[in-house]
Amino acid sequence: MTQQADIRTLASAARKAGRDLAALSGAQRTAALKAIATGLRNQQDRILAANELDLQRGRERDLAPAFLDRLTLTPARIEAMARAVDEIAAQNDPIGAVDSEIVRPNGLRVARERIPLGVVAVIYEARPNVTSDAAAIALRSGNAILLKGGSDAQRSNEAVGLVLQDALRETGLPPACVQVVTATDRQQIADMLQLDDLIDVVIPRGGEGLIRFVADNSRIPVIKHYKGVCHVYVDRHADLTMALDIALNAKVQRPGVCNAMETLLVHRDAAADFLPALRDAMTSRHVTLHACDRTRQLLDDPRVVPATDDDWHAEYLSLDLAVRVVDDLDQAVAHIEAYGSDHTEAIVTRDIGTAQEFRRRIQSSCVMINASTRFADGGELGLGAEIGISTSRLHAYGPMGVEGLTTTRFVVTGSGQVRS
Amino acid sequence: MTQQADIRTLASAARKAGRDLAALSGAQRTAALKAIATGLRNQQDRILAANELDLQRGRERDLAPAFLDRLTLTPARIEAMARAVDEIAAQNDPIGAVDSEIVRPNGLRVARERIPLGVVAVIYEARPNVTSDAAAIALRSGNAILLKGGSDAQRSNEAVGLVLQDALRETGLPPACVQVVTATDRQQIADMLQLDDLIDVVIPRGGEGLIRFVADNSRIPVIKHYKGVCHVYVDRHADLTMALDIALNAKVQRPGVCNAMETLLVHRDAAADFLPALRDAMTSRHVTLHACDRTRQLLDDPRVVPATDDDWHAEYLSLDLAVRVVDDLDQAVAHIEAYGSDHTEAIVTRDIGTAQEFRRRIQSSCVMINASTRFADGGELGLGAEIGISTSRLHAYGPMGVEGLTTTRFVVTGSGQVRS
Repeated sequence: MTQQADIRTLASAARKAGRDLAALSGAQRTAALKAIATGLRNQQDRILAANELDLQRGRERDLAPAFLDRLTLTPARIEAMARAVDEIAAQNDPIGAVDSEIVRPNGLRVARERIPLGVVAVIYEARPNVTSDAAAIALRSGNAILLKGGSDAQRSNEAVGLVLQDALRETGLPPACVQVVTATDRQQIADMLQLDDLIDVVIPRGGEGLIRFVADNSRIPVIKHYKGVCHVYVDRHADLTMALDIALNAKVQRPGVCNAMETLLVHRDAAADFLPALRDAMTSRHVTLHACDRTRQLLDDPRVVPATDDDWHAEYLSLDLAVRVVDDLDQAVAHIEAYGSDHTEAIVTRDIGTAQEFRRRIQSSCVMINASTRFADGGELGLGAEIGISTSRLHAYGPMGVEGLTTTRFVVTGSGQVRS
Repeated sequence: MTQQADIRTLASAARKAGRDLAALSGAQRTAALKAIATGLRNQQDRILAANELDLQRGRERDLAPAFLDRLTLTPARIEAMARAVDEIAAQNDPIGAVDSEIVRPNGLRVARERIPLGVVAVIYEARPNVTSDAAAIALRSGNAILLKGGSDAQRSNEAVGLVLQDALRETGLPPACVQVVTATDRQQIADMLQLDDLIDVVIPRGGEGLIRFVADNSRIPVIKHYKGVCHVYVDRHADLTMALDIALNAKVQRPGVCNAMETLLVHRDAAADFLPALRDAMTSRHVTLHACDRTRQLLDDPRVVPATDDDWHAEYLSLDLAVRVVDDLDQAVAHIEAYGSDHTEAIVTRDIGTAQEFRRRIQSSCVMINASTRFADGGELGLGAEIGISTSRLHAYGPMGVEGLTTTRFVVTGSGQVRS
């Protein structure tokens, strides 16, 4: 590890590089992205060697096997990183695109034009693939990026960073567009988070502790993703076969992610038909149901345990599911308002009016009508690569892709107009 | 002044009211806005009486005449407030509008739908008209609002707030949608700025001191508007008559506002033809030129004073203008990057390539091509009413209107799709 310039110097270099990057053409940014994908493939050995040092150190420090697995790079994983960059290279370049243009009565043309945010900082944990993924999304959207990965992956991240900078140099882009920050303690991160004159947005990717630390210490706006307590509401007018498919998919297809269902709400008129089938399907897949009294009375099954208030708040990320019978849509909405995290809620119903009312009254970042909560994902929603998910509403709400790292400004074209 | 519930209670009530407001129809929000305009007209005497108390107290405290003028309400000013609300009532309701909708290969329809931010807090200084203006923009965009005006205008703001709440009650909206905060010291504002679980965005409207205080003390995202150091660049290919019109308009039409020009940059090839005419026009309008050496040599006029580095940084807001001769577009861009505030920059040129390069390389929130900087204003840009101007890029950049208080979320409509 080399001695690194102080963080303000790094961020200043990023700001300057970002300005240059923003003024380049989309074709130049595409060329750099393609060179990055090639670089990752060609310099695989250099990256694997650095990764091996991180792994040795991790084994010496007795890191958990699951953690070491996330840290591990292989030729296949590096190829997957390169392919992800190729896909981002193939996405449309958003910079300079005009979202809307009007002509004012005085003849001024007023366009809303996409420009980059400027400098993005991403703070993340173990996975070294985030280094190339996040850098590629930043470049595609014309932003310089500061990458602060977990210290356990530091050598891997630095090696990836050098490969990326080589590719930038090769294609005539300022290498300071992508910089891996080697700060190792939280104080240095806290220092970085004060640089609101140089960094435009911070995206923490990791557990709630990291996100709270960043939010508590940042003068820079933070894209926050606290948690996903996602609900599925099975309406009285639901197709119960569809409801069961969606509930199973939302719970068991990948229980450890933020868009998995944590609580199922069932209209009382559907409960008697739906809940026994749900119980059978879920228990056969080793899901423990934590249920309200009405559910338990109806099922009368010792495997179904009583839910407490904690269950309604829980982001289990495991094969556990909270289940509640509700009187009507009002009660379902009130439950979601009280316990939800504004991430993703789904309704299963055949009734168009009920679906519309659910859509109108639920303010979450993703509302699913007759679809699994698991589609709350940048790729599935058609954004291409995803840099993060926002559960707060300012700037971006829900999954954020390339466009999420841009903003719009006004370009006004006249023929000498002055204001009277 | 009545004892007011603590700020967390107020903000909680706003949050609840905002959720209800968001689920109402646009027609209901329009009806409330019309009732507010009527209420302002019908309850003019109540507002004027409260304003007289503020004015008496202000005179006792020897406030400056200009300050007292800003604080003063008259029947004509209240009529103007009512008309402003009428205009906002006539704007399109943005809530529920779909910006884009795609169909994914699996048949899912993915819509980006406008929803309100939730709860907006506006912190402002003397003018009581901001109370009704900001409230109307918030209601039009489906947001609850907390209004914290200057303590010198407190009785006026409270009276306007009560009129607004009466109108909300009359039309069946929760009165907590609009709440005037009566906190009188900065500690109470600082307490409010910690409530990031209840308030979604803070908009400070006032001097740089207020904005820095809010930015330094807020856990809630802040829409910042630091200053407007706006530039006009007169290119070698400029129509010099147009350039003179634009420069004069940008400087003298209303020098005390943020979109007035503060620095004029002139291409060296245009300097000899342009600067004498500029000097004559500006000095006849009592504008003092603070100029670079090249300008001073060319003009050889004792009224033209030497510019220092401070002049390039200055937001004069007065009949002063910094003037610099530059070698080319590169130097103009470098000057704007070094000294600008990302607010508004204009170019005057007949050359389409130069205009495009200026547009591409300048990252400010408003770029004007052959038009006065004074058009950087919500009304002039077609946004309708303006809630503020952002000079930072996250969420909004440049003038913000009704749409600036909304965000987009995903609404996904399927027919039972699950993720594989």
